[in-house]
Amino acid sequence: PTDHLFTSPLHHGELCCLLPRILIAMIILFGVFVRYDEESDAHWSEHKREKNITSDIENDFYYRYPSFQDVHVMIFVGFGFLMTFLKRYSFGGVGFNFLIAAFGLQWALLMQGWFHALDPADGQIKIGIENIINADFCVAGCLIAYGALLGKVSPVQLMVLTLFGIPLFAVEEYIILHVLHVRDAGGSMVIHTFGAYYGLTISWILYRPKLDQSKRLNGSGYHSDVFAMIGTLFLWMFWPSFNSAISDHGDGQHRAAINTYLALASSVLTTFAISSLSAKRGKLDMVHIQNATLAGGVAMGTAAEFMITPYGSLIVGFCCGIISTFGYLVITPFMEKYMKIQDTCGVHNLHAMPGVLGAVVGAITAATASESVYGHEGLVNTFDFKGKYAERTPATQGGFQAAGLCVALAFGIVGGAIVGFILRLPVWGDPSDDNCFDDEVYWEVSLISFVFYLFHSKVAL
Amino acid sequence: PTDHLFTSPLHHGELCCLLPRILIAMIILFGVFVRYDEESDAHWSEHKREKNITSDIENDFYYRYPSFQDVHVMIFVGFGFLMTFLKRYSFGGVGFNFLIAAFGLQWALLMQGWFHALDPADGQIKIGIENIINADFCVAGCLIAYGALLGKVSPVQLMVLTLFGIPLFAVEEYIILHVLHVRDAGGSMVIHTFGAYYGLTISWILYRPKLDQSKRLNGSGYHSDVFAMIGTLFLWMFWPSFNSAISDHGDGQHRAAINTYLALASSVLTTFAISSLSAKRGKLDMVHIQNATLAGGVAMGTAAEFMITPYGSLIVGFCCGIISTFGYLVITPFMEKYMKIQDTCGVHNLHAMPGVLGAVVGAITAATASESVYGHEGLVNTFDFKGKYAERTPATQGGFQAAGLCVALAFGIVGGAIVGFILRLPVWGDPSDDNCFDDEVYWEVSLISFVFYLFHSKVAL
Amino acid sequence: PTDHLFTSPLHHGELCCLLPRILIAMIILFGVFVRYDEESDAHWSEHKREKNITSDIENDFYYRYPSFQDVHVMIFVGFGFLMTFLKRYSFGGVGFNFLIAAFGLQWALLMQGWFHALDPADGQIKIGIENIINADFCVAGCLIAYGALLGKVSPVQLMVLTLFGIPLFAVEEYIILHVLHVRDAGGSMVIHTFGAYYGLTISWILYRPKLDQSKRLNGSGYHSDVFAMIGTLFLWMFWPSFNSAISDHGDGQHRAAINTYLALASSVLTTFAISSLSAKRGKLDMVHIQNATLAGGVAMGTAAEFMITPYGSLIVGFCCGIISTFGYLVITPFMEKYMKIQDTCGVHNLHAMPGVLGAVVGAITAATASESVYGHEGLVNTFDFKGKYAERTPATQGGFQAAGLCVALAFGIVGGAIVGFILRLPVWGDPSDDNCFDDEVYWEVSLISFVFYLFHSKVAL
Repeated sequence: PTDHLFTSPLHHGELCCLLPRILIAMIILFGVFVRYDEESDAHWSEHKREKNITSDIENDFYYRYPSFQDVHVMIFVGFGFLMTFLKRYSFGGVGFNFLIAAFGLQWALLMQGWFHALDPADGQIKIGIENIINADFCVAGCLIAYGALLGKVSPVQLMVLTLFGIPLFAVEEYIILHVLHVRDAGGSMVIHTFGAYYGLTISWILYRPKLDQSKRLNGSGYHSDVFAMIGTLFLWMFWPSFNSAISDHGDGQHRAAINTYLALASSVLTTFAISSLSAKRGKLDMVHIQNATLAGGVAMGTAAEFMITPYGSLIVGFCCGIISTFGYLVITPFMEKYMKIQDTCGVHNLHAMPGVLGAVVGAITAATASESVYGHEGLVNTFDFKGKYAERTPATQGGFQAAGLCVALAFGIVGGAIVGFILRLPVWGDPSDDNCFDDEVYWEVSLISFVFYLFHSKVAL
Repeated sequence: PTDHLFTSPLHHGELCCLLPRILIAMIILFGVFVRYDEESDAHWSEHKREKNITSDIENDFYYRYPSFQDVHVMIFVGFGFLMTFLKRYSFGGVGFNFLIAAFGLQWALLMQGWFHALDPADGQIKIGIENIINADFCVAGCLIAYGALLGKVSPVQLMVLTLFGIPLFAVEEYIILHVLHVRDAGGSMVIHTFGAYYGLTISWILYRPKLDQSKRLNGSGYHSDVFAMIGTLFLWMFWPSFNSAISDHGDGQHRAAINTYLALASSVLTTFAISSLSAKRGKLDMVHIQNATLAGGVAMGTAAEFMITPYGSLIVGFCCGIISTFGYLVITPFMEKYMKIQDTCGVHNLHAMPGVLGAVVGAITAATASESVYGHEGLVNTFDFKGKYAERTPATQGGFQAAGLCVALAFGIVGGAIVGFILRLPVWGDPSDDNCFDDEVYWEVSLISFVFYLFHSKVAL
Repeated sequence: PTDHLFTSPLHHGELCCLLPRILIAMIILFGVFVRYDEESDAHWSEHKREKNITSDIENDFYYRYPSFQDVHVMIFVGFGFLMTFLKRYSFGGVGFNFLIAAFGLQWALLMQGWFHALDPADGQIKIGIENIINADFCVAGCLIAYGALLGKVSPVQLMVLTLFGIPLFAVEEYIILHVLHVRDAGGSMVIHTFGAYYGLTISWILYRPKLDQSKRLNGSGYHSDVFAMIGTLFLWMFWPSFNSAISDHGDGQHRAAINTYLALASSVLTTFAISSLSAKRGKLDMVHIQNATLAGGVAMGTAAEFMITPYGSLIVGFCCGIISTFGYLVITPFMEKYMKIQDTCGVHNLHAMPGVLGAVVGAITAATASESVYGHEGLVNTFDFKGKYAERTPATQGGFQAAGLCVALAFGIVGGAIVGFILRLPVWGDPSDDNCFDDEVYWEVSLISFVFYLFHSKVAL
């Protein structure tokens, strides 16, 4: 009965052939295209003199590096540990997250660079601290998609998901931020809506009717739930850095951090309330606490840098906590049963719905912005009404914000459909229905845990 | 025999009725009272011009945000994971810590705002980075109190504890810092002494004579001890940020970080020494390592920004490590047996005694400050001898520092007594004596861990 | 058969006699020698005026404190949790790491201070933020050495290792950085090469021919592997801060962070590739993921602040990931069998080889530096070709860099040999061959885990 444990469906050499090729391609592309920007190049001292910059502390590094490190923690520890909650898929959760994030950020530097940071003088991408933050953001989209597929796909499939996901993200981001001139500093649309619908569409196409053959492993254990709380808390604590990392210097970053802090605090209270309302005998469910508490951060992704006011932030967190927790209670089971979407981590509740809500909140907040609230300069700075956008009004901006949401949805769903069909090809070494959610398929697992595994199986079956 | 597991003492709807009401009240109060301050408002660019501020980097955000994030980690991961050490109460430790901290910081922004940040021009609270750091500090007081009660109270009781604890803290802080003009940047008095005696007094009033019915669960497990080390280390590493977060710009923050770093390092050595001296056969006890190593940070809460000298910091850490470890060995059992104070986490050893010691060290260091050591400007800046305090001498300041300690003690004990009697009302859904320290009472716990639970019970009983 | 569990080889009073004496010595030495520097002293406001410093934000604290905190996390959580991977030695891994790091940083402030920060005016060591970063760096050398010895030595032996390791490090660092004027901001030579060979040489001298009596415990468990990933990820994420923490303000720190970020990302891909290539049935091995993914950071320790270019960083990470993973597969077993070096954590693969490679990369990058790439000022700043080194050329610098590597190797091997012989004296309470890798020897371990231990023994034997 445990014979399947000793037959890995991963063909020899797949991952080990794929990765060096990808990396060599990266090295060549970086060699041709990527250089340091003015602030990270050794010519900085000359640049500083030319631009009359009086102090090294004016280097963008000092404005953004602390936020970058927080974002980096969210990507690797936050997303990684959040996905350790399954009782026998903790290695896969944190390990494959590590793999695709490390690949994705290199690929993102290139793809985003071509769209956003290309130096017209020499055709090269000039990178600095803001680019590496953006690369981490870009990776987040693919990690969200992984959340929907956790335990059901092979690492090679995840590499393919990332290989296509990053360029899709970069194009979508270019259209939203540059063509439509939409503001989305924390990525409610660009990151969360796109990433979630990308993953959910792939999951729908990869639907496994017999997934309940693995149901013994599709759940959490006591310690794996505590590990997942490490992920939750680092995401929760550092989300203010996420939403403020690439906001405007000064009040922009300051306000984005405060708004996000408040929305997150508010989400926690509604999550606990709904969780205890609905579960059996008023007991709390760790799945809700691990996920829905974060919804406020997702929903502030667009509006965090706006003058949404402190109470506005609390209201956003309030609504999101409710929607997200109800999602886990009602919508995820519904989607699995009637829509054939198997969403392991519930990214529909944590990223899709709060992301859409955040985009709507952002559009409304932008549309109602006024000089009396922002001041003239504040309005221009916050919405970047400069250059060819100098004539744009807040109301128009609100319309463009809404258009941005449609672009994110379209890219997520259409992109996910295409990539989903690619991933259905029978060459990627995905696990069979009866050994999903099982680390033994892809990892050496030591004897002691195997013993516990047997012990558990005997009791549970 | 395990029948009690299936009867939750939490009445349906308590938490789920309480939390939304509290949150709606918060939203209304924030709507009426809370606005952005000059540095987080979109009018910053105008403000900057008015005040001749030359660069965005002068925004207080850049001075304090890295420290804020460290403090935030201490509150949620530090305190949260430190309280996961019980073998079957890890969900409650990290989860309820999350709940009350998220509620407390909103409530603290209001309460502290009314006392410290009210704009007389329009009667509104103007918030910026310093306010959110202070809100986290305020929350710390209630989390310390939770430490004494861990495993013995319901989440609704914790909400009540926080609901009253935050205003008590805000008034106490106002009297100490503003009326008495006492310096206490890291809160030896304001946070630790107050929080510890608040929790200990409540624990005394809620004394459970039959708590040994739960003694099978009142201890740590191997992995829960490792989880608790996550909390310990993040508290230990980031304590320099805690004590320097709201110190003066420049040398104040710099010195506070160095002094705290040294005192903490020193505590670690004495903790290991006393722990191995006293335990059976020279073996070390994880409880000591998890807690007493932090005593140096608590005890530097007042004096960290003073010129206490590097060796002074080492001496403070040396003494605290001894006192705190002996506390775990001798005083906690004594208090439980003879004083009827059941202190789950030993907050008396980690916060109460080192907090009082820190206040005394602060008073002495202040009283002996001199212009020869600080320079004239340094003395004025460090102790804020400006405006109506321009004439105050270091010796007088020392006296006021001592008075501050008395205020903190009085608020902790009297406040704790009042709140303790409220929490004794039989309406809060607290666990019975035989299911304290048990996550199954308030949380859905998955089958696999329940199996281990049974397995353990059979062997241990 | 389990009788040995109840006989601790640690003699009463060793640790508890040693530590207070050391700490009292520290206090006296700090009292005589250590004071605040200009930027952490209360005279800062006067100093600021004298030097025409316009703003508090120019205090070095604001340039380096975020990096310091990241480095601090690497030392205590990174190294500490990386060493929790053994199934029954997690307390020893994280706990003894905590002890020797806390001691080492005090000792390092003194030793490094005498060599690098002595004020000639008054013969005192003036400390500020850069000193405490350097103290953490110095400690890292000893923690690397601990990695080779994990589970086989007593805490007293570790204290001795640190007591001698810190001065060895300080002298080696002085010769490399000051006498030879070598650049090594992230310590490929100074920290990693030295630390690894120091530990490996000690391990060679302490060779235990009968170590397989403990082989039942010399391996990881499922949850201990997840704990170790906490260490891995915090090391991985914060390594850009490690390599940039003491680089030049401005472009130096900025570039060092970017280069390290890229090399690390690249290492992850090759590690996964080689791990899946080589292991049984294409399965991944957690040991590789936990360790070899970090090799890119080690190897960028010297060249991170140079203009190595983004693709150069990727190439370095590529090579290191391969070398390091092959090391785990081939070299560690070879060394244990034929060279009698028992290297518990594989520091040879993670620190020694990548450290040497990093030194070579640094030497080549330095030797090929040119004004066309760096600009004149950039070249002078990056390599500090000032004062008596104003005439040094990049080619000469490359030679000195190579000489620096030899110094690091010599100090590691000779120092390790001396300390190894000291540690062979039979007075240090080291564990017997059959209870290595066992926390029960030095720690109180609670009943529940003991039960699991028995359960495991019964099944595994």
